[in-house]
Amino acid sequence: MPTPVPTPGGPDDSLDPVVRDNRDYTLFSWSVQSTSNPIHMAGAQGCWFWDGDGNRYLDFSSQLININVGHQHPKMLEAIKKQVDELCFAGPSFATGPRGQLGRKLAEVTGLAKSFYTLGGAEANENAMKIARLVTGRDKIITRYRSYHGATMGAMTASGDPRRWPVEPGVPNIVRVFDPYCYRCPFGKTPDSCGRECVTHIEEVIQMEGPHNIAAIMVEGITGSNGLLVPPDDYYPRLRALCDKYGILLIDDEVMSGFGRTGKWLATQHYGIKPDIVTCAKGLTSGYMPLGAVVVSQHIADYFEKNMLWGGLTYSGHPVSCAAAVANLNIYEEERIFEHVLELGAHLEERLLAMKHKYACVGDVRMKGLFSVLELVRDKATKEPLAPFNGTSPEMQKLAVHLKSQRLYAFSRFNMLWVCPPLVITRDELDFGLDIIEGALALVDDLIAVPVAADD
Amino acid sequence: MPTPVPTPGGPDDSLDPVVRDNRDYTLFSWSVQSTSNPIHMAGAQGCWFWDGDGNRYLDFSSQLININVGHQHPKMLEAIKKQVDELCFAGPSFATGPRGQLGRKLAEVTGLAKSFYTLGGAEANENAMKIARLVTGRDKIITRYRSYHGATMGAMTASGDPRRWPVEPGVPNIVRVFDPYCYRCPFGKTPDSCGRECVTHIEEVIQMEGPHNIAAIMVEGITGSNGLLVPPDDYYPRLRALCDKYGILLIDDEVMSGFGRTGKWLATQHYGIKPDIVTCAKGLTSGYMPLGAVVVSQHIADYFEKNMLWGGLTYSGHPVSCAAAVANLNIYEEERIFEHVLELGAHLEERLLAMKHKYACVGDVRMKGLFSVLELVRDKATKEPLAPFNGTSPEMQKLAVHLKSQRLYAFSRFNMLWVCPPLVITRDELDFGLDIIEGALALVDDLIAVPVAADD
Repeated sequence: MPTPVPTPGGPDDSLDPVVRDNRDYTLFSWSVQSTSNPIHMAGAQGCWFWDGDGNRYLDFSSQLININVGHQHPKMLEAIKKQVDELCFAGPSFATGPRGQLGRKLAEVTGLAKSFYTLGGAEANENAMKIARLVTGRDKIITRYRSYHGATMGAMTASGDPRRWPVEPGVPNIVRVFDPYCYRCPFGKTPDSCGRECVTHIEEVIQMEGPHNIAAIMVEGITGSNGLLVPPDDYYPRLRALCDKYGILLIDDEVMSGFGRTGKWLATQHYGIKPDIVTCAKGLTSGYMPLGAVVVSQHIADYFEKNMLWGGLTYSGHPVSCAAAVANLNIYEEERIFEHVLELGAHLEERLLAMKHKYACVGDVRMKGLFSVLELVRDKATKEPLAPFNGTSPEMQKLAVHLKSQRLYAFSRFNMLWVCPPLVITRDELDFGLDIIEGALALVDDLIAVPVAADD
Repeated sequence: MPTPVPTPGGPDDSLDPVVRDNRDYTLFSWSVQSTSNPIHMAGAQGCWFWDGDGNRYLDFSSQLININVGHQHPKMLEAIKKQVDELCFAGPSFATGPRGQLGRKLAEVTGLAKSFYTLGGAEANENAMKIARLVTGRDKIITRYRSYHGATMGAMTASGDPRRWPVEPGVPNIVRVFDPYCYRCPFGKTPDSCGRECVTHIEEVIQMEGPHNIAAIMVEGITGSNGLLVPPDDYYPRLRALCDKYGILLIDDEVMSGFGRTGKWLATQHYGIKPDIVTCAKGLTSGYMPLGAVVVSQHIADYFEKNMLWGGLTYSGHPVSCAAAVANLNIYEEERIFEHVLELGAHLEERLLAMKHKYACVGDVRMKGLFSVLELVRDKATKEPLAPFNGTSPEMQKLAVHLKSQRLYAFSRFNMLWVCPPLVITRDELDFGLDIIEGALALVDDLIAVPVAADD
């Protein structure tokens, strides 16, 4: 994801030597390198990290919405080191203790049957798509425009995110539909009176693409980096019914929304449905070790008993990654983290709704658990965004600079600001960060209240 | 990769409980699940691992040709645990100590400039292709038929391996050419008298595809799982010249052949050329932690100073993975492992050539350092393969069963048997394993000497 605050600058001898080596010898994701201005993360604990000069930051984005149990959780460190001493690596054709334990646990928490392990979300989604095509014998995959499924070519083509544009044309047979984006409904409706056109139009697309051609509908449990779109409560039951009607598999990408982020194992569990395939990463290990997984239903698992699974990778089932995930899932339960998320999420919701009421620039707030976003506007009546789609604005840049100056690390993109702290955050820490955000919103309100001078 | 010895069978209550959990709850790569017969790796040390019953296996394939420094190297365990205690995770936009140290080291050993980090080889190749397209503004990538570049959709389409077939059509603009496969030259030539048609035909392809359309030629340094094809000594200088002539970037996939496997950092360093982009994984960390990298030239690094790098992933620059790689590269140097590989490789070459002379079934042997293969045939004169391309045969299956019964873990595929032990193997261990292989070859010679009865 783009660095929130690009700061132009060339080589600088006064730089922290760690920053200099990183800039001189490594490339940063989604960046023009000369504008990347990395913080040297010298250490971290819980919801906080600090740089080489000892400046402490409150992490309001869980890094990339992944470090759910917070930085340097002692039980995670212990479990990883124990597995490192026991066995660091086994090839993907071997059975190991952690691999089996994790498979059993993932089946339990998802209600599905078997897991195929990858290293991250992109590969999980690539394999989910491949599996759906193999099992159904159909080619097309329906995805949504406001979505991100990863950066490898299959996952990126499946995404609607503008980061897809540079690799187009990608893989064939992706068909995109609209999103349950009620604040800016593509059908011009409102949730209280609409006919759930966000689902019904998909049936129209299915008809026109040929139901017998469609292997799967792949959606993020709750859309993450494309706007945190919380669907109406009956969206998923209706989507599930549509899939069942046409024999289409439902792939639920829970890479960002899964593992307690919304207060449940899977975001879709809030809506009482069960997908055919769940993909996950991020909160699966809280990022301590790279790991992704594709969890499939019994029906799909049965298919591969007698048919070739045409997929694999050297690091599938990496013992240390699996051991980290087992420890992480245990922490969620032992520390009753999901209950904490639901409780604190209610408080977060109250505060976000109060901000929407109080600040002119807050057009909408959307949340589920500790997964939330503020959508910023120039004008509540017209909903004119504070920055254009796929762009930024002086106001959004000033907001990001302000948050950074207050040592609040938060993710912003286009006209949105995410609030997704580690799930172990305390109420005091949450309020501390939200107070900083309120300061930034007041600043933005000042900016949009006064017309910008021509030479600005 | 496929399990070498499929053993049909259903649920079995006498199974090791670890194996049962792995079979009941996880999916195995490139397998029909009911035929997967995983060994429970209970522990490992150096070139050996053992199963739940205490049976010890000599690892002649370095797992998937990745565990170069051997299992459970004490310096690796120490470095990983140290980094785990210091800092387990930082997002991809942060600078960390290990990330910078590794970038500096990779620049030094490759002669290139900057590294972009991924988690494995597939993602490294995906990003290399993307980078080549962005830098050149051209779309087509030339790859070779006998190649494997990974299983995500871009990397898989770039591969020529039959594992590509189930995802076709993949990404557009991949053009495939023939290989320097001298034993079965696609041009009907022999290396001593040919005109290096394996290179010259690529120029013909370039002409017909339009030189201005071709971003890169991507090749494995030395082709790995598609036959270990060691090119003639002047292949790479000629290929490099061809790239220079047309402004085409040379992407050198060193995922399998890099990091000492052939006795140098990169296989292409044997031939005195420098690629524009190197991709790596496997031997970069010896598999202790998942990591891949795309290492680019100064020219390419300069391009991204002012232009967006349209690529990224949550775990790019994972601190523990980078720390593992730094430790691993240091071990190569401190323990003078490459010298050991070159010395032991000469011994391996002698023994393989003696086998080719001695056994009727050995049609060809190919090697560089401790990267080697035996190509097996029914008849040396006709070169009829012992198993067909993309298939197996009773003889290849018996060979695999025999090796497993002797507790030699080796990788075989189609009509080939790989010998790629950890680089720290001793001469005695190597000879011990090669003696077992000779026993298997004698068995195959017996099988092909007697016509198979009709009811076999």
